[in-house]
Amino acid sequence: MSTKQEQDDRLFLGIDVGGTNVKAGVVRGDGTVVSHAAVPTEAVKGPDHGVSRMAGAARLAMQTANVGPDAITAVGLATPGTMDIPAGMLLNPPNLPGWDDYPVRDRVAEQIGLPTILQNDANAAAYGEYWAGSAREADSLVFYTLGTGLGGGIIVNDTIIQGEHSHGSELGHVIIEMNNGRRCATGQFGTLEAYCSATALLQQFEAAMLAGRSTSVAAMLQEDRKLTPLLISQAAEDGDELSQQLILDMATCLGVGITTVSHVIDPSMVLLGGAMTFGRDETSTGRAFIGRVRDVFRQRAFPAVAEAVTIGWASLGGAAGFIGAAGCARLSLRQRSV
Amino acid sequence: MSTKQEQDDRLFLGIDVGGTNVKAGVVRGDGTVVSHAAVPTEAVKGPDHGVSRMAGAARLAMQTANVGPDAITAVGLATPGTMDIPAGMLLNPPNLPGWDDYPVRDRVAEQIGLPTILQNDANAAAYGEYWAGSAREADSLVFYTLGTGLGGGIIVNDTIIQGEHSHGSELGHVIIEMNNGRRCATGQFGTLEAYCSATALLQQFEAAMLAGRSTSVAAMLQEDRKLTPLLISQAAEDGDELSQQLILDMATCLGVGITTVSHVIDPSMVLLGGAMTFGRDETSTGRAFIGRVRDVFRQRAFPAVAEAVTIGWASLGGAAGFIGAAGCARLSLRQRSV
Repeated sequence: MSTKQEQDDRLFLGIDVGGTNVKAGVVRGDGTVVSHAAVPTEAVKGPDHGVSRMAGAARLAMQTANVGPDAITAVGLATPGTMDIPAGMLLNPPNLPGWDDYPVRDRVAEQIGLPTILQNDANAAAYGEYWAGSAREADSLVFYTLGTGLGGGIIVNDTIIQGEHSHGSELGHVIIEMNNGRRCATGQFGTLEAYCSATALLQQFEAAMLAGRSTSVAAMLQEDRKLTPLLISQAAEDGDELSQQLILDMATCLGVGITTVSHVIDPSMVLLGGAMTFGRDETSTGRAFIGRVRDVFRQRAFPAVAEAVTIGWASLGGAAGFIGAAGCARLSLRQRSV
Repeated sequence: MSTKQEQDDRLFLGIDVGGTNVKAGVVRGDGTVVSHAAVPTEAVKGPDHGVSRMAGAARLAMQTANVGPDAITAVGLATPGTMDIPAGMLLNPPNLPGWDDYPVRDRVAEQIGLPTILQNDANAAAYGEYWAGSAREADSLVFYTLGTGLGGGIIVNDTIIQGEHSHGSELGHVIIEMNNGRRCATGQFGTLEAYCSATALLQQFEAAMLAGRSTSVAAMLQEDRKLTPLLISQAAEDGDELSQQLILDMATCLGVGITTVSHVIDPSMVLLGGAMTFGRDETSTGRAFIGRVRDVFRQRAFPAVAEAVTIGWASLGGAAGFIGAAGCARLSLRQRSV
């Protein structure tokens, strides 16, 4: 068992940079959130401006907590990739266009005046759930973020599987169909992301409508609404068969991907999070989605693994990133001291 | 970088238990082999007899090294699964029939009179290559053993990915074909092992011959020889097209599996070992096999991963298991002390 549950009154600052917003939070060393704030990233204004937004969000969070930088032990910074984690560099991040080859970690450290570590945003969210969320009692975690694409993070006994080249835990790029596979946004064939992501759902839905499949969504679109995963999710909840079927098809593919990763990692727990979770256990669609994932996993995984590994929902929502970033800063200090 | 290369003059005993033979070796803490021995397992005589064979092999290795048990720091024991690694138990090992629910670690510790740790044989072989073989300069390793089935082991910065339920690194059970997949020996569909293993090669070859495919192997079989991977490998080397094609088909599937696992782990290095390595770089068949694996990996993996991850042959051969078992014993002492 890791020592993640021990008492620790130090304060850490977590910053989670997205294409739209920067979130920052002051987080205690036991994983509880003291304060948090969010400001628009204004990514189009470039990385130097972005760093000032990060520092601004951090100041807001510290003001709310009524502490200054001297009260903070270290800063954890989470950004989307591509990146070089040990070097603290952004390389070519598709969600932060123009922020190429940028030493974001050191710039943030200079602006805030505190030691800062960099982590990938999906890995940080995974660490958040592992440290302080649904997996806080687990020794190891495989975490999926369902959104526009499909991201992930893996933690094994306090080791973050970030990869030697900052490309670990790319769970959307597990190949589930070797031949004749669909193509995902990054151009690979047969990857899970091409079957299980908002992008994939919209593509499949549009193809089905073009092929003449009947759906109650068609009438909703005539009211000038845009096709979104939320609209499909609501239609499924209202009984639309096409919507239900395509959401369950996604769940089947996710179950296959989870089986593969569970045969590689054999974790204590698998968690599903991100923006596209279909209302989770609050809706019949969410329950049907995770039910199908679990069924496929039980059918296809080794019996010992199928019985022992829990599949559930993440619990920290949009706070997972900054909480996890703070946790990664704390972890980095611990691992340097041993 | 791990501290695996540091000087360490302590002696460890590694024992590698297979269905046919028990291998034992005295191994220095820097990974060099002092002595080794092998005796038949005589598995049919049951696990208590087997433990006496293990102790016998260990005594032989110590005699050859001219040391007694008092010179040995600890024992590493590697066995096939299924097993419960932390409990030191064999559960239901297919390669050791009848050795069910057997506390093999504690029995060996009693017989030899030394602290003993248990590890899965494929994980131990992976650790051997990581500690003292082809991956001795690498920070992380994904290791495949090609044999009757397809096994594997993963090491990330001295963490062995053994899994929470002793089912980690089951690289043969990565699913490469979600729909209409072939079935492997353990009953799962579409797993890599169903496409890339001695069992799969023989099945595909027999099916092709029954379908009337022409092959020079047919004449060899009329001389009362049995169809084996070695025979197919030799035929490929002599220009038999069917043999060449089926070996390359296996390599294609292995390349897909390596792509998936590299998107999960992003290791420094991938190594191929085991009994079925087609003569490695010594034959054109071996070179064509690994060449195809590398080509598929380069086509299907993220460019950053495809460029950075090395795919090569393991170097310790049949000694990887006992060397790695000794290394795991040393690692266990290190990790307990931090």
